[in-house]
Amino acid sequence: MNETSIRIGVLGATGYTGRELIGLLVGHPRARIVFATSESEAGKPLRGINRRAPDLALVRAEDAPLSECDAVFSCLPHGESQRWVERARAAGARAVDLSNDLRVPGAQTPDWAREAVYGLPELHRERIRGAELVANPGCYPTAAILALAPLVRRGLIARGPVIIDAASGVTGAGRSPKRELLYAEVADDFRAYAVGNVHRHLAEMRDQAGRLAGAAPPELVFTPHLLPVQRGILETLYVPVSDALAPGDALGIWSEDYRDEPFVEVLPDRMPSLRDVNGTNRVSIGVTAVAGVESPLLLVVAAIDNLLKGAAGQAVQNLNLMFGLEETEGLPC
Amino acid sequence: MNETSIRIGVLGATGYTGRELIGLLVGHPRARIVFATSESEAGKPLRGINRRAPDLALVRAEDAPLSECDAVFSCLPHGESQRWVERARAAGARAVDLSNDLRVPGAQTPDWAREAVYGLPELHRERIRGAELVANPGCYPTAAILALAPLVRRGLIARGPVIIDAASGVTGAGRSPKRELLYAEVADDFRAYAVGNVHRHLAEMRDQAGRLAGAAPPELVFTPHLLPVQRGILETLYVPVSDALAPGDALGIWSEDYRDEPFVEVLPDRMPSLRDVNGTNRVSIGVTAVAGVESPLLLVVAAIDNLLKGAAGQAVQNLNLMFGLEETEGLPC
Amino acid sequence: MNETSIRIGVLGATGYTGRELIGLLVGHPRARIVFATSESEAGKPLRGINRRAPDLALVRAEDAPLSECDAVFSCLPHGESQRWVERARAAGARAVDLSNDLRVPGAQTPDWAREAVYGLPELHRERIRGAELVANPGCYPTAAILALAPLVRRGLIARGPVIIDAASGVTGAGRSPKRELLYAEVADDFRAYAVGNVHRHLAEMRDQAGRLAGAAPPELVFTPHLLPVQRGILETLYVPVSDALAPGDALGIWSEDYRDEPFVEVLPDRMPSLRDVNGTNRVSIGVTAVAGVESPLLLVVAAIDNLLKGAAGQAVQNLNLMFGLEETEGLPC
Amino acid sequence: MNETSIRIGVLGATGYTGRELIGLLVGHPRARIVFATSESEAGKPLRGINRRAPDLALVRAEDAPLSECDAVFSCLPHGESQRWVERARAAGARAVDLSNDLRVPGAQTPDWAREAVYGLPELHRERIRGAELVANPGCYPTAAILALAPLVRRGLIARGPVIIDAASGVTGAGRSPKRELLYAEVADDFRAYAVGNVHRHLAEMRDQAGRLAGAAPPELVFTPHLLPVQRGILETLYVPVSDALAPGDALGIWSEDYRDEPFVEVLPDRMPSLRDVNGTNRVSIGVTAVAGVESPLLLVVAAIDNLLKGAAGQAVQNLNLMFGLEETEGLPC
Repeated sequence: MNETSIRIGVLGATGYTGRELIGLLVGHPRARIVFATSESEAGKPLRGINRRAPDLALVRAEDAPLSECDAVFSCLPHGESQRWVERARAAGARAVDLSNDLRVPGAQTPDWAREAVYGLPELHRERIRGAELVANPGCYPTAAILALAPLVRRGLIARGPVIIDAASGVTGAGRSPKRELLYAEVADDFRAYAVGNVHRHLAEMRDQAGRLAGAAPPELVFTPHLLPVQRGILETLYVPVSDALAPGDALGIWSEDYRDEPFVEVLPDRMPSLRDVNGTNRVSIGVTAVAGVESPLLLVVAAIDNLLKGAAGQAVQNLNLMFGLEETEGLPC
Repeated sequence: MNETSIRIGVLGATGYTGRELIGLLVGHPRARIVFATSESEAGKPLRGINRRAPDLALVRAEDAPLSECDAVFSCLPHGESQRWVERARAAGARAVDLSNDLRVPGAQTPDWAREAVYGLPELHRERIRGAELVANPGCYPTAAILALAPLVRRGLIARGPVIIDAASGVTGAGRSPKRELLYAEVADDFRAYAVGNVHRHLAEMRDQAGRLAGAAPPELVFTPHLLPVQRGILETLYVPVSDALAPGDALGIWSEDYRDEPFVEVLPDRMPSLRDVNGTNRVSIGVTAVAGVESPLLLVVAAIDNLLKGAAGQAVQNLNLMFGLEETEGLPC
Repeated sequence: MNETSIRIGVLGATGYTGRELIGLLVGHPRARIVFATSESEAGKPLRGINRRAPDLALVRAEDAPLSECDAVFSCLPHGESQRWVERARAAGARAVDLSNDLRVPGAQTPDWAREAVYGLPELHRERIRGAELVANPGCYPTAAILALAPLVRRGLIARGPVIIDAASGVTGAGRSPKRELLYAEVADDFRAYAVGNVHRHLAEMRDQAGRLAGAAPPELVFTPHLLPVQRGILETLYVPVSDALAPGDALGIWSEDYRDEPFVEVLPDRMPSLRDVNGTNRVSIGVTAVAGVESPLLLVVAAIDNLLKGAAGQAVQNLNLMFGLEETEGLPC
Repeated sequence: MNETSIRIGVLGATGYTGRELIGLLVGHPRARIVFATSESEAGKPLRGINRRAPDLALVRAEDAPLSECDAVFSCLPHGESQRWVERARAAGARAVDLSNDLRVPGAQTPDWAREAVYGLPELHRERIRGAELVANPGCYPTAAILALAPLVRRGLIARGPVIIDAASGVTGAGRSPKRELLYAEVADDFRAYAVGNVHRHLAEMRDQAGRLAGAAPPELVFTPHLLPVQRGILETLYVPVSDALAPGDALGIWSEDYRDEPFVEVLPDRMPSLRDVNGTNRVSIGVTAVAGVESPLLLVVAAIDNLLKGAAGQAVQNLNLMFGLEETEGLPC
């Protein structure tokens, strides 16, 4: 570990996202973990989470040496995260908040939190580079926004709802013991949840789509489903598009926008599946025109690993940008 | 077995549908299996498929005693089924064809096949009762049509595409050894296939929706996905509806239409999952309004067991109707 | 429901075993559920567990009308079950205890409990017929004892440990939310637990083997493993046998002993897998000699559905015997 | 890629082992893939297997430029591999054969193949360092031999059979389409296969145990099972041990023997599961005494990732040794 390593603190290290993040940081050539917190497992060795982790004990958040860090990641639950991020900022650390708390500024957002940059590098890279505080995007919004951006920014989405039909592996639901997440409940099943456009991630998708559109955002309809797999998100989007977009040209706008992106893969001739992205920080996108319909409709399929590009991987990508490192440092692509 | 048992022949008994059908017939109080065919396993005992089956050997279709049957089921592959059903009919047996061959009459359909009744009892019960020849519906269309029928027949679907986003367990893809169906390829994955409105089942959905509408059918967009589970289909439908349908009234039309149906369950307050239907001949349907959209949009979720209501179970339901038996005889509900 | 139906109470109806039992009783032609208890879900409809159940609300055990039952099943947790079974007996009901509490009588066993018959019909059928109180066997012991009995009762087991290497689906671990039973913890994993001969079921296996041997029981070594499946137990037993047993004769003793058993299947030429038994009340057994060893060693593989023959199914089999019904009544075979 | 990179050829790149190997080589700092073969997919890009692979097309083995390689790996099927390894050696390349062909020398083994070193680095490191030809161990033997070696080499195994009860994920069975490997056949099932001591890997285990014992090898009994998971092997061994080994000392001999091994983990207080090793080149071992038996019996549990330590990972570990590189180079630990 060289002298210029970045001293890192991780708040909430024992959930699925926290564990994934620890794993990435342990393999990151420039990161050095200074502390990791857990309320339920304080006192236990961090190596219980990752064999190659530094020889530290987990501490309670209350006891975390925030001021000894250059950067603090918060993987704390929604609602609880914000006050710890505030403390980390007050202690002088830069921060990446992986919770939902700072992603969509609202009337209640305090002043200090208004500087938070939405950490989707493919859209906001320059702002992230200088940021002290980053709101790491939600898993579903990451895939949805990257799938839609080429159309939204060109104003090519036509009137009518954009359907985002999504499915996620169970690690997206967290590691707290709940009956509905037991193996014997999830295996061999498949179900929709948060139906009727009520999922928390919708506000985030709309907010980002609106900023990108610079005008009225497209109308979004979002239905998540729970898949009997551990990780991975697949989103199937149905997008009404302008006649101005020739079907043969559609794929080209994704290829053009993401040509130089290290973590975006536009598939020329097929649709992605979880297998294309699990274990990587990549989003894979496929596009095709829907036949036999009156008004032009595109089918866009996007896949990410919910724990990597959808959470911990994107957080490290943001860290790399914030500290002027190579964007891909320490990330599987 | 009483004297009035129905003598049954099964063409294609060793695929997933054929095996499921054998299992149902073995437990059916009025059915008696007279022959079961398999090209690859001819000569092997039928009890290798089901322990309680009669002590028969599988025979090649060529050697099947078609004329000794009251009814013949064909679980042969699409394209191959039709000529065997023709022979069964010529031999005097009534027939239920579980393949795709007779579902959508076209210019190529021969005369004898034009008498085929589309075997969806909830829509065509009376015609099935008198039928000599039944085309058993496809698995995806069964769920989709039953989900949409209450809206279609009332003319309540508004302009714009009806999105049918569907996912099926792997038994729907058949039992022939193919690399993409290996455990190590399917497990932990999820993917769309036949994207862009090109799946064979679309014609069947459109044909049935058109007949039901009595006018221009709604515009359908259908995307199937492959789930890492053995059985079950879940379809999530996004349906633009007329302003004439008050959101609070929506669920009522399903409840009304399916009130007396033994195999349709309309859920009053939640969406179905595979767990609600696997192992049964039931379709479970949930309905909710989508919030935050300009024009009214309903979310309808329908689930079936692809091997039962989506294939063998519905075939037995049709048999029961054709022979004047109790419709639920021998079927798990 | 005819007048002579047996009035049944179920203590602990919402765990996996309780739910399976409710399902069997609902389909049983002679059983009538009078009450079903749940501490956590009291007040909710029993139909939430099984659609075809009678229209009853779950009650707390405290409020169960024990005296209105002919038979009470207890699916309560080990340690808690005994006192409720005592109450049921005091109220005049016959009882089947599915917990571990009464299976192995010891110094602490109260007098009333000493009348409990060990409910393994294939070994103790006659005593069960007249029993007022049955201790329903554990899942692992059911498979192990039935696998070993033909050897034990003939005194054919040689000196040296009998290894019982077993694997069970997760429903065997109960339905209480525990982190280690979450989908994301169990899927894609396989592990041994209770290693070193410390599992609770050993005492039960030894007790039964000893009774059957009529002398020193064989030395048993038992290692359970947790399988990433919902249901099913497979046990692979390594049994040192006497030279008196010619290898070619081995299978014959299982065939002989179980010839007339409705729920035992001895496979002539292969080993069973979970697929042979899941969904049925059957135990399937395969036997082969181990080649290339100095002293004769048999490999015996036994499979059961842990929720049926390993719990609720066997409990109903016992009920049938206790009340003089056909032993197979209401049971999938 | 620097000038001193090792030029590598891979025979049989499209099976599960071949694909895993390509993935490791692509990330290996010193390896450069020169060719990769596939009979069925010749002409297709290697990048279809791994996105970061060099821009090469797969070729038929017949067309492989064997003489342009420093090292050739063969992942060809058993029986077919040997002749291609012979050609590679004749062309001047060093070779690692991942098939079964060269592991156990016999009367039929040709002279050129007699120089093959058994590539289990933890036992034969020095001989591998100078080797031109390495026979890469089988997956089951790798775990079994590493689990037993500390006892075997100390002569601590007592009379009586050593039971090796093992379970493997399905990638161990290869990627050729076979019905019994379909998702719908493997999922939710668990079964023993090659029962009765007839599995091919037994000869390899016996041969290695005999060499290590320097005397009569222990008597081995091996039963493999097929797990419904993609990857990972767990072996549960029951080992009769000498009274000379105090139970409290048992674990110590594994700790001692493997203290400096980068890829062996001896767990001090629990048993390993697949989760401990999948995705790594590690073997994890746990040991405990079995209670309640007359003669001392140890339970040893060993886990590996069958595609890494059990195949491709160990092959790269051997490559590193053969070419004087750091043994852990390019390997996940």
